[in-house]
Amino acid sequence: MSRTPSEEKNLQLVLDMFANVLEPLDSSAADQYISPDYIQHNQSVKPGREALKEFLDWARGENPNSTHDIKRAFVDGDHVVVHYHVRRWEGDNGWAVCDIFRVADGLIVEHWDVLQNIEPGGPNPNSPF
Amino acid sequence: MSRTPSEEKNLQLVLDMFANVLEPLDSSAADQYISPDYIQHNQSVKPGREALKEFLDWARGENPNSTHDIKRAFVDGDHVVVHYHVRRWEGDNGWAVCDIFRVADGLIVEHWDVLQNIEPGGPNPNSPF
Repeated sequence: MSRTPSEEKNLQLVLDMFANVLEPLDSSAADQYISPDYIQHNQSVKPGREALKEFLDWARGENPNSTHDIKRAFVDGDHVVVHYHVRRWEGDNGWAVCDIFRVADGLIVEHWDVLQNIEPGGPNPNSPF
Repeated sequence: MSRTPSEEKNLQLVLDMFANVLEPLDSSAADQYISPDYIQHNQSVKPGREALKEFLDWARGENPNSTHDIKRAFVDGDHVVVHYHVRRWEGDNGWAVCDIFRVADGLIVEHWDVLQNIEPGGPNPNSPF
């Protein structure tokens, strides 16, 4: 395995954030993982950590039973990538999401993502994951 | 830098594939980078290497001046991640794309991607990249 101890730590920070913030949509746990200087690149959310917490609260109200299934995760230095499946409700085809996080000093400081609706019925019988 | 020689090689293979296959949409160079057993997870393309080459030929016919600007790229063992901006024509807002490749024995053997339209005018003044 080629991961350094620092990379393992960065990856674990992000996986812990998924488990404790994103999966339960729990804004109260966000400050343990997200820097106060958080730079948001998702175009649908206002910038900054406070806006992220408001978004989590909103999402929890809209879809309290949503799930975020991690399919694969990678780390390269201070960047962590997570490929996962969001389903907002039972039976939802959901979204494929690729998140990229930059970590500094034990906190997530920057975030990019790409999100795509999963639409069954295309020409490829392979799973999107 | 935490990348091993093998990781550097895997990353370079993918960057070379972008330069020589994806950016020029040149299917004739694909066999140098893509395994005959290529597993495609993009839902809009038929599975396999030959279908990928047909897709490249089609895309080149549709949008011969398209560009693929790499914003960041990562490697973790045998997986390479590329975050890039596709524009099909001048002035196209384009797509944000995150590609994930698995490399084995010096060839790309598996590919997942997530693709999103870039839509200006949202609540976040930060760039999607």
